[in-house]
Amino acid sequence: MTNSATNLRLKLPMACIILEVIIIILFGTLVQYDDETDAKLWHKEIANGSSNYDNDFYYRYPSFQDVHVMIFIGFGFLMTFLQRYGFSSVGFNFLIAAFALQWATLMQGFVHGMHGGKIHVGIESMINADFCTGSVLISFGAVLGKTSPVQLLVMSVIEVTLFAVNEFIVLTVLGAKDAGGSMTIHTFGAYFGLMVARVLYRPNLDKSKHKNCSVYHSDLFAMIGTIYLWMFWPSFNSAVTAHGDDQHRTAMNTYYSLAACTLATYGLSAVVAHDGKLDMVHIQNAALAGGVAVGTAGEMMLTPFGSMIVGFLAGTISVLGFKFLSPILEEKLKIQDTCGVHNLHGMPGVLGAIVGAVTAALATKDVYGDGLVCLFLTSWESVPSPGFMAISLAVTLGIALLGGLITGFILKLPIYGAPPDTICFEDGIYWELPGEEGSHEELTTVRTPDEAEKLNA
Amino acid sequence: MTNSATNLRLKLPMACIILEVIIIILFGTLVQYDDETDAKLWHKEIANGSSNYDNDFYYRYPSFQDVHVMIFIGFGFLMTFLQRYGFSSVGFNFLIAAFALQWATLMQGFVHGMHGGKIHVGIESMINADFCTGSVLISFGAVLGKTSPVQLLVMSVIEVTLFAVNEFIVLTVLGAKDAGGSMTIHTFGAYFGLMVARVLYRPNLDKSKHKNCSVYHSDLFAMIGTIYLWMFWPSFNSAVTAHGDDQHRTAMNTYYSLAACTLATYGLSAVVAHDGKLDMVHIQNAALAGGVAVGTAGEMMLTPFGSMIVGFLAGTISVLGFKFLSPILEEKLKIQDTCGVHNLHGMPGVLGAIVGAVTAALATKDVYGDGLVCLFLTSWESVPSPGFMAISLAVTLGIALLGGLITGFILKLPIYGAPPDTICFEDGIYWELPGEEGSHEELTTVRTPDEAEKLNA
Amino acid sequence: MTNSATNLRLKLPMACIILEVIIIILFGTLVQYDDETDAKLWHKEIANGSSNYDNDFYYRYPSFQDVHVMIFIGFGFLMTFLQRYGFSSVGFNFLIAAFALQWATLMQGFVHGMHGGKIHVGIESMINADFCTGSVLISFGAVLGKTSPVQLLVMSVIEVTLFAVNEFIVLTVLGAKDAGGSMTIHTFGAYFGLMVARVLYRPNLDKSKHKNCSVYHSDLFAMIGTIYLWMFWPSFNSAVTAHGDDQHRTAMNTYYSLAACTLATYGLSAVVAHDGKLDMVHIQNAALAGGVAVGTAGEMMLTPFGSMIVGFLAGTISVLGFKFLSPILEEKLKIQDTCGVHNLHGMPGVLGAIVGAVTAALATKDVYGDGLVCLFLTSWESVPSPGFMAISLAVTLGIALLGGLITGFILKLPIYGAPPDTICFEDGIYWELPGEEGSHEELTTVRTPDEAEKLNA
Repeated sequence: MTNSATNLRLKLPMACIILEVIIIILFGTLVQYDDETDAKLWHKEIANGSSNYDNDFYYRYPSFQDVHVMIFIGFGFLMTFLQRYGFSSVGFNFLIAAFALQWATLMQGFVHGMHGGKIHVGIESMINADFCTGSVLISFGAVLGKTSPVQLLVMSVIEVTLFAVNEFIVLTVLGAKDAGGSMTIHTFGAYFGLMVARVLYRPNLDKSKHKNCSVYHSDLFAMIGTIYLWMFWPSFNSAVTAHGDDQHRTAMNTYYSLAACTLATYGLSAVVAHDGKLDMVHIQNAALAGGVAVGTAGEMMLTPFGSMIVGFLAGTISVLGFKFLSPILEEKLKIQDTCGVHNLHGMPGVLGAIVGAVTAALATKDVYGDGLVCLFLTSWESVPSPGFMAISLAVTLGIALLGGLITGFILKLPIYGAPPDTICFEDGIYWELPGEEGSHEELTTVRTPDEAEKLNA
Repeated sequence: MTNSATNLRLKLPMACIILEVIIIILFGTLVQYDDETDAKLWHKEIANGSSNYDNDFYYRYPSFQDVHVMIFIGFGFLMTFLQRYGFSSVGFNFLIAAFALQWATLMQGFVHGMHGGKIHVGIESMINADFCTGSVLISFGAVLGKTSPVQLLVMSVIEVTLFAVNEFIVLTVLGAKDAGGSMTIHTFGAYFGLMVARVLYRPNLDKSKHKNCSVYHSDLFAMIGTIYLWMFWPSFNSAVTAHGDDQHRTAMNTYYSLAACTLATYGLSAVVAHDGKLDMVHIQNAALAGGVAVGTAGEMMLTPFGSMIVGFLAGTISVLGFKFLSPILEEKLKIQDTCGVHNLHGMPGVLGAIVGAVTAALATKDVYGDGLVCLFLTSWESVPSPGFMAISLAVTLGIALLGGLITGFILKLPIYGAPPDTICFEDGIYWELPGEEGSHEELTTVRTPDEAEKLNA
Repeated sequence: MTNSATNLRLKLPMACIILEVIIIILFGTLVQYDDETDAKLWHKEIANGSSNYDNDFYYRYPSFQDVHVMIFIGFGFLMTFLQRYGFSSVGFNFLIAAFALQWATLMQGFVHGMHGGKIHVGIESMINADFCTGSVLISFGAVLGKTSPVQLLVMSVIEVTLFAVNEFIVLTVLGAKDAGGSMTIHTFGAYFGLMVARVLYRPNLDKSKHKNCSVYHSDLFAMIGTIYLWMFWPSFNSAVTAHGDDQHRTAMNTYYSLAACTLATYGLSAVVAHDGKLDMVHIQNAALAGGVAVGTAGEMMLTPFGSMIVGFLAGTISVLGFKFLSPILEEKLKIQDTCGVHNLHGMPGVLGAIVGAVTAALATKDVYGDGLVCLFLTSWESVPSPGFMAISLAVTLGIALLGGLITGFILKLPIYGAPPDTICFEDGIYWELPGEEGSHEELTTVRTPDEAEKLNA
């Protein structure tokens, strides 16, 4: 099962160490503490009358940690549903997230504006780096089980870079609002990943088909991921919104959207699944679409009512996507989307962009009061037109699809130790696997009912 | 194993979608942002000199997220101890919690006072909705494995409503203090659920007896739930107490109560369990009783010393309840309490109410200083008499038992797709189950020791 | 498998209950709320113009909860990697942590200064108690699988006491800085545990060798522990640093150190492990070494660049330690270090102390501004010399090794129900084990593919 092609003894260490050394050198030359993490600068602020509470750390660190949990536990465990790919799901998720957050700090720093030639870092850059990482992990979901960790690192290098460019165009050049990243994170990550999956299409993937499914306990591990993503999504969407009512409102809108989405998901799953039974795939994924779909409008005066409608719609299209669209994507478009990211991040992300455009267009001074300036007019002179948001969405889709296309071809080079068609979705190719419980006679003995009884006697 | 009676293709979607549509309509007509989530109103406060930090979000959101984790991960995974009911434990917990928190927002809003015909929502209503949800999940524990998701949704509709009524009587009419809900959440949820379980008594449940127990890994999943509940209980009890010393003290009292409770639980478990061994049921449940038992008095000047005594007692009665009382409840009173909620929430809740009554009666200006007014005299003109707390407890028990009785009879109607006696505690009846690991020849091959060796070779 | 020697019916209850009663009595006589948890005292502060936000609770409680998760979930699940020791790993972790945090409150209170004969408790004492507990759990890792819970409680009593003494000497007498505990927590806990393991050396441990390894799902449970430790380490290192830039900077330095450490770990693991495959032992442990190694210097102006170099080094030595040093420790020094704490906490802790000494020695007013006073000059009149830090490290090592030696001999007494060599790493000796899934005919039937198909039909 292991041969020289997939042996990573040289490839993975080289990738990890070269990338880390490059990062360390760039951090050494370019990165500085910002005003709130630098001892001297912050104590100057204190001397000028600031309180320690004005340090952004206290506004954002709890949200940051929730986002961090989503990235490392949420995404990592959500993908453990595959029966023999748990080590890789959690482990590669861990590796590429740890890499991407460093690389994202640099790329976002370059693009979003340097301070005297230096990138300033603090809690907000940490959250933004985690966000960018989330986008990479979405793409990872599309190619899960079919890629080597070296491919994933290369993909991360490119995707993070393009993410930063797209984010700059959408948020800074076009001045769109997208605090929870319906466009910049979810739509971008999904379509980038889908395009990579398209280029890496494996016509003989059915040779590994028997491993491309879950078992009982792997589905329970995956639910850990799902539930953490679901619970902390309010923190995700509100992590970088403005202090005060904005953070508060965004968290609450997301909470309601997700709750409504969950009811829609259970209802629809029982309708479309076999024999009126619930399908774990829907519960694990579609119940989260409500968080994606209020990523743009969540900070606006969407109201709980509006949030619930959006969440309900998102859950509905996500379940329907899993049932009806995914097979079509695979058969007609030759996109093998392992985790169904099109249904969880793609379509709900586009829905989120549309909802955001409409909600922004409806914003008035009458509804937002002085909050209008704070929320919108920092970027626009008037409330944004839906046209601008539409352009943002189009740019995002364009960069994602084109970037994914190019990345796919780069990843197709036969130098990264990718798994053969016959051993996809299998940890054993990249991980030393432990022996199985019960494979030793002594253990089996202990585990027969008679022995267990004796043991407890 | 599936037949038309338990086929939920129509019933579950109808329940989910009708309920969600009703909720959305009611939210549309009745629910508004409160002063701290509304852009215009909050910016007025800012203009009047408030700081963004005065927004209650920053006082309570970290606690809210901890409570959220308890509701969705804590309760959900605690119940995965059943060997073949993990999907339902986590999944139905997820469904009814997502429903109940929305419904609770409405019911609590109705009952606790509308503002010009509108229900105002913000972080405090979110926490209170999660609290009410916790009560429903406690009742779920009593009927776990024996109910369909449609029954659970119907139960939630009624229980949430009665919870709000009882909470109003206890906290507003009677003016009792119960920040952590020893009475309103734990006692109420437990006795409501026990009464429902009584009415739904199944004389032939022993036909499913072989599934009503744990296996090795299901007990480990359950420990995830236990530990999260244990760790975050300080946040639960302090989430809605007054700012400042009250939140601080409540969290600390709960922390000490739980620590002492854990020592008592391990000690007692080894005494009563077979052959001096520890019993996972005790560890998973009784170690938490200390959090329940300081739900009322935790915000008072109970002292760490007092908290530890209460926790120690709670752990003791909880273990003894599991060992000696639960069999009696089942045999004599015909109450099949799957999770033993009587031992974890019922008795410790009543203990908590008593401790709260005594502690409140002992409160003096000398001990509390100006805190006395802040803590007690908002509701009473003098420190509360134990009599008032006793009435509160009696009302809670009365509404819970009567409500559970009526709910039980409603749930007994043969229209909800309840499982037959032979297939209780079994996911397969409501969930599409994955094939088992090792059931495919290819996988089995991989998993024999020889193959594993080859794989690693 | 059970005999009178390992039957804990008397021993464990006596240990738990006697210890808890002693603790409760000492708390009753000695422990008081501090100014911020006492109703009267805090309301005096409020009357004097303080805001509720000045209550330290709001600065530290989110970090405390993250630390709490590390102690109970992080350490607990990290150790579940053993195939048949999951109940004990999580369960004994739970027991000794619940004990140690109470005992630590007393010991740290005694040693660090009483207030009018009383120990004052609040959020900071809670964090410090959790820190001390962490040290005990590190030692637990060294003896995992080979000790009874009674031995572990006795070990905790002694280790917590010596921890408090050492912490007092290092932080108060010598005035060293060690906010994240590279020395006081990690170095101390590791070498204490290693010495205990040395004294408890079992020449015939290979009789249990087949259980001293993981299985597929136990490794996934362990990853829950790893990821939580990794994510929340920034909170650990920053939990008791000064408000403002210090907490902010410490969290960020730790975040970068861990990210770089992870890349180094993956790279090195593929180099040294069999056939270019990744080894779960490395990923689960070495990726965390970056958090240990910035425990001292993390609060200083180490810069992200410096943090990454330290993290990279820590990951490297940790993987190399697992590969090359652990076997030597076992064969030559007769130290059977079950979890490899020497590689995760020992060497990286010493590295952290050295890095801290160097970073402190380089501190200048020019870099720290007024922060210099705040950070260093509270303890020293000038910036600390590396010599002082070296003495601190030497004292820590001395107390840990000597303390571990004595503790080991005390634990060697044949009165604690320790497991025989043939049944180490086995839950069944101290826990009632559930029957196995599939051991009942009914269940097996359900689980054959044919039946599963029927079930889903």
